[in-house]
Amino acid sequence: MREIQGLSYPLFIGDFWEVLLTKISELAPSQVFVLVDQNTKAHCLPVFLDKTGFSDSKLIVVPSGERFKSLETCQQIWRSLFKYKADRHSLLINLGGGVIGDMGGFCASVYMRGIPFIQVPTTLLSQVDASVGSKLGVDFNGFKNSLGSFRDPEGVYIAPGFLATLSDRELLSGYAEIVKHALIRDEALWRALPKELSKEHDLSAIIHDSVKIKRDIVQADPMEKGLRKLLNFGHTIGHAIESVMLESSEPWLHGESIAAGMICESHVALQCNMLGPEELKTLSDKILSIFGYKAIPASSFMRIVEKTRLDKKNRSGRIMCTLLEGIGNGTYDKEISEAHILKGLEYYANFA
Amino acid sequence: MREIQGLSYPLFIGDFWEVLLTKISELAPSQVFVLVDQNTKAHCLPVFLDKTGFSDSKLIVVPSGERFKSLETCQQIWRSLFKYKADRHSLLINLGGGVIGDMGGFCASVYMRGIPFIQVPTTLLSQVDASVGSKLGVDFNGFKNSLGSFRDPEGVYIAPGFLATLSDRELLSGYAEIVKHALIRDEALWRALPKELSKEHDLSAIIHDSVKIKRDIVQADPMEKGLRKLLNFGHTIGHAIESVMLESSEPWLHGESIAAGMICESHVALQCNMLGPEELKTLSDKILSIFGYKAIPASSFMRIVEKTRLDKKNRSGRIMCTLLEGIGNGTYDKEISEAHILKGLEYYANFA
Repeated sequence: MREIQGLSYPLFIGDFWEVLLTKISELAPSQVFVLVDQNTKAHCLPVFLDKTGFSDSKLIVVPSGERFKSLETCQQIWRSLFKYKADRHSLLINLGGGVIGDMGGFCASVYMRGIPFIQVPTTLLSQVDASVGSKLGVDFNGFKNSLGSFRDPEGVYIAPGFLATLSDRELLSGYAEIVKHALIRDEALWRALPKELSKEHDLSAIIHDSVKIKRDIVQADPMEKGLRKLLNFGHTIGHAIESVMLESSEPWLHGESIAAGMICESHVALQCNMLGPEELKTLSDKILSIFGYKAIPASSFMRIVEKTRLDKKNRSGRIMCTLLEGIGNGTYDKEISEAHILKGLEYYANFA
Repeated sequence: MREIQGLSYPLFIGDFWEVLLTKISELAPSQVFVLVDQNTKAHCLPVFLDKTGFSDSKLIVVPSGERFKSLETCQQIWRSLFKYKADRHSLLINLGGGVIGDMGGFCASVYMRGIPFIQVPTTLLSQVDASVGSKLGVDFNGFKNSLGSFRDPEGVYIAPGFLATLSDRELLSGYAEIVKHALIRDEALWRALPKELSKEHDLSAIIHDSVKIKRDIVQADPMEKGLRKLLNFGHTIGHAIESVMLESSEPWLHGESIAAGMICESHVALQCNMLGPEELKTLSDKILSIFGYKAIPASSFMRIVEKTRLDKKNRSGRIMCTLLEGIGNGTYDKEISEAHILKGLEYYANFA
């Protein structure tokens, strides 16, 4: 078991079950609720119940998938908490991927102005990304995470064993954030990252290294006034791609969108003379070799550009972006234009 | 103009318009939104626009009344912010009573994980109560303020002049919190409180004294771990009365409910041998002479008792209450029973 220190809450990776049980008994909650979606109910909950020995915890089950990361599902969760007469000392354990962690954490942070919650992320994406930073929220009005809050969990407990329950596609999706962490801060790690990821390997070490990069950035700037914006690399265009593709018949996963977003935004960096053409090519080739190429219909380009105008990072209508000033060296608060974004999308489309 | 110091944000009472304008220009918001309800749009907004000279601030108008303090109205507010492309640096000014302040503040605290907001309370209730403490929220599932957050405003600006726009009934409603502040902490103030309140008088001094009592309590315990629970005096039963009467054809105002709640809970204190029979009589007589007697149908008693079981202050199903150990001396975390509450309601009904 590895521990990541220096956060305002405990974070463990590996065989954490005993420390988790100790933590819960310290909290002495009046009731324990476990939030799952249909997938984690089937694939992760049995392990969770077996390891914790819980049987009397109340289960709240919501549908799986990003399109249920909504205020409507929150209302279902809040109503369940009311139905069971959850009080301020009730504990909510979020067992699932990013949707469950973000939405469950948000619900906990707002129910009776805040009840304690614990995150047990079950996807690679949520293990390396949502596990640090205390950003919670749901999608609203067609915009990702547009309603939410900042609030620390009582603890984060990462079991790489849960990754065996993921499809290859979902595993890869999480890898995008690991790639991002390397690209903005650590060129050596970027070079060392394998082009193929296998569920058969123990990913504890790679999760540990990636979480540490995020921890260092978030610690330096918890409220995203400056440095933390680095973590938005790939996300200005990537979130817009994800939002638009979410409305299509074949929604993209978050990491797939961010992988494409990183290529587009790296081309924007080239347009701004921050990244050389060879660096761009190396970067694009490696990302595509990891994630493959997924086509974005040219007919969606303008809608994607439009979405970037409403990104949370913007100020006074100016589109603010995190760009690479060379591989391993992100820089934030760069103003970019709609034309930059359109050219970035066209560059990406060339790999078809 | 009076200033209440020692809070983490500025609070001014009186002719604050210049300091408010300075504050806004310091914040340098990308856009300014003003949230009003139909009442404050008609009666307070003209003064606000005249004093500030604002014309280009975007107006968000919601229906008036506690029953619109809901997640549905929040969604209307969030959609309006999206429609005007509000970003994280937009400022929301909440011009209205407790509903507007609590709900507008909550909407601001959640929109894009938090945008700055300013409170301009226009009712006596919100001026002496919601102005300190940073509790935000809306009603949900039939329970008052059951969804919400804690977040500081950028500033609170109290204009007693707005009180002239209130009905006598609304003015009295606010007086209940002033009475409460005196009863839990300041016997001399309790004795000095006038039995009649007139809009013609300048209420600045009484507002100032009352806000200071609340400030001292909240400063000592911002997250309501202990001392702050004093402020719940009258509210365990009072909130339950308010919730139940909200469903009737003639909803009670918050202060009316709290006035009745303070009498009921003082009878509970008598049952617990904390308050003498003469103190109870003095207290009940003065409260009734100020607020008058409003009948609670005996058929609602059990629903009121039921509602108290879901109070936010409870723990593990035990009903926790703030009781008076003599006038001017509140004490918190007292466990009370359903039988206590029922007897308290019956005592109140005797004044019919």
